[in-house]
Amino acid sequence: MGLPVVGMVGGGQLSRMTHQAAIAMGLSLRVLADATHDAAALVANGVTVGSHESLEDLRAFAQQCEVVTFDHEHVPGTLIAALEAEGFTVLPGSQALLHAQDKQVMRERLAALGVPVPAFAAVASPDDLTAFAHAHGWPVVLKAATGGYDGKGVWVVRSLEDASAVLASGTRLLAEQFVPLQRELAAVVARSPYGQAAAWPVVETVQSDGICVEVIAPAPDLPEERALEAQSLALRLAQELGVVGVLAVELFETAEGLLVNELAMRPHNSGHWTIEGARTSQFEQHLRAVLDYPLGSTTMTAPWVVMANLLGGEGDPDLDKRLHLLFAHDPALKVHLYGKDVRPGRKIGHVTALGSDLTDVRRRARVGAHYLRTGEWLTA
Amino acid sequence: MGLPVVGMVGGGQLSRMTHQAAIAMGLSLRVLADATHDAAALVANGVTVGSHESLEDLRAFAQQCEVVTFDHEHVPGTLIAALEAEGFTVLPGSQALLHAQDKQVMRERLAALGVPVPAFAAVASPDDLTAFAHAHGWPVVLKAATGGYDGKGVWVVRSLEDASAVLASGTRLLAEQFVPLQRELAAVVARSPYGQAAAWPVVETVQSDGICVEVIAPAPDLPEERALEAQSLALRLAQELGVVGVLAVELFETAEGLLVNELAMRPHNSGHWTIEGARTSQFEQHLRAVLDYPLGSTTMTAPWVVMANLLGGEGDPDLDKRLHLLFAHDPALKVHLYGKDVRPGRKIGHVTALGSDLTDVRRRARVGAHYLRTGEWLTA
Repeated sequence: MGLPVVGMVGGGQLSRMTHQAAIAMGLSLRVLADATHDAAALVANGVTVGSHESLEDLRAFAQQCEVVTFDHEHVPGTLIAALEAEGFTVLPGSQALLHAQDKQVMRERLAALGVPVPAFAAVASPDDLTAFAHAHGWPVVLKAATGGYDGKGVWVVRSLEDASAVLASGTRLLAEQFVPLQRELAAVVARSPYGQAAAWPVVETVQSDGICVEVIAPAPDLPEERALEAQSLALRLAQELGVVGVLAVELFETAEGLLVNELAMRPHNSGHWTIEGARTSQFEQHLRAVLDYPLGSTTMTAPWVVMANLLGGEGDPDLDKRLHLLFAHDPALKVHLYGKDVRPGRKIGHVTALGSDLTDVRRRARVGAHYLRTGEWLTA
Repeated sequence: MGLPVVGMVGGGQLSRMTHQAAIAMGLSLRVLADATHDAAALVANGVTVGSHESLEDLRAFAQQCEVVTFDHEHVPGTLIAALEAEGFTVLPGSQALLHAQDKQVMRERLAALGVPVPAFAAVASPDDLTAFAHAHGWPVVLKAATGGYDGKGVWVVRSLEDASAVLASGTRLLAEQFVPLQRELAAVVARSPYGQAAAWPVVETVQSDGICVEVIAPAPDLPEERALEAQSLALRLAQELGVVGVLAVELFETAEGLLVNELAMRPHNSGHWTIEGARTSQFEQHLRAVLDYPLGSTTMTAPWVVMANLLGGEGDPDLDKRLHLLFAHDPALKVHLYGKDVRPGRKIGHVTALGSDLTDVRRRARVGAHYLRTGEWLTA
């Protein structure tokens, strides 16, 4: 039938859910996974086991694909550039992706574009940090310039002593002003090479210990003009940075307005709600975008959609038994399991609830995720 | 995580879409396919190539699975019974499935249950057919007792001469009264071993040359009591026949009421609309049922949902190009392609439209399917 072959580097849950979307489009996602037990490798047919840090492995994988895309940001930019130089189609491209890989590059570029970001500076020494804290006060947020995720690579330090181990570790660091925020939002958009772009409603993301635990779509009580501001900002960044595929812009909502926290250029946890909650899911949209197909409708399918992440708890959860009881408890809850081994705090799935009453929808999602994690029913 | 392994015999689109649903449930469907290019074999990880008519192949497959189920009715009942005798869990079981495999057994059982069916008789000779036509008039519908699908194995004969080739073919035949019908309906339900059952809204199915081309959910202008009658009938049959999994009951709506046409004990074409159109799709529900999980909500996600089958047309359709143009034309249409080679009249995919205006939803589905098939835009 001549449909294009898309390959995704990385075998995690994003790749797994992208494969689900690919099936409907008549495609079969090819996956470059670290291991055969990776979330996507368990369910996709075209799996190559190899290293995303090996040009040889990446090249051999790219040779099987018309388009190569990513489920994470950990492929070294030099290797992506090398693939591009060899003529492979890699989307998002290395120049765009750099802004999701290197926080310092991202901060500097956004600041140059006049996009509101927290005050920041590269810090390499105690003196640098002291100077930054002198200007912006303690605490200071230290971030590894590259490689962090889910709260890893982020340290909130209240003094020079607090920071000494991190400073001594040799990690390239960025200092950021600790921003008193009202809440976190995310604006998720997609953009195609043709330049078409589409935005889903802006969502509220609720974090716990640096990990997203809940996403509420749309963000409750968000004034129309602020929602439009966030969407416009994300669409503008997608264009300015030349993003192809899904772009998630994590935002701080503060008393003074919106600040950009992080960027991701791939399907993102803040967009999982779109599987059932929007006419086009972020996974389908990412595929449409990297294939340069026209993008799909981002209309919501219900007034409120809440996604709660399922984090691994202690011990063996006997998910099979818990699923039985949860399905009996809430026949309309949608459960997504990633096939991953359970480890405390690890994202092993998510649940999505939809409906017209936010309180009820939110309660259902929380109850479901909490029960699957702990085996206990939330009573509040 | 200890989730059960489900195996599906048959690698067609039903298996392909069941695999999609399995991914979300943390499962990876195992598939026994005829060939590596089967629709499901292209996208699933755990594919075994083998014959569904070989006990050895079936047994080797069943040994990998906690539950074995089917995407078609072509596995000989004796082999299913043999697997059961060896202790494998096969759902639906051979005793239930027989009623979806053998039209004579089905007709006799339904008649015995007092379920309304067209007048019927087994016919083995011209004399048998003459006697049947004498009692019920011409034309007569002749059906192969086993093995038919999509209009194959069905002949409408207007005279003995008309029937001579079929009668001489050695096919075991059933004669049925030609029923003047107003339209065709389908009642799709699911039942678990525990005995829980759930029904989706009754749909109208539109056929062309014996092949379903369009499904409208819910069936327009269907009186509440008739919808309830159809659902009750399907739920009763599921229980009486001991069905586990999805049961689709194809119905004739006539001036005198409902008549049962055919039964299918698997996800069915008349339920494809549930992927986007119901909170729980028939594919997820089939998995829940065969795993004896509590069944999911069958609530519709929109007032009207229309599915149109995509049948293969003449020549190479360049689906990639047509997808581009269709996506541009209707960003909210959901397209499902099965990865199958295009042959005239073959089901190679389907499209689904949802909304609050039936005329518009129906038009969108028809326009989409027609365009993908022919490259031409319907103007009516």
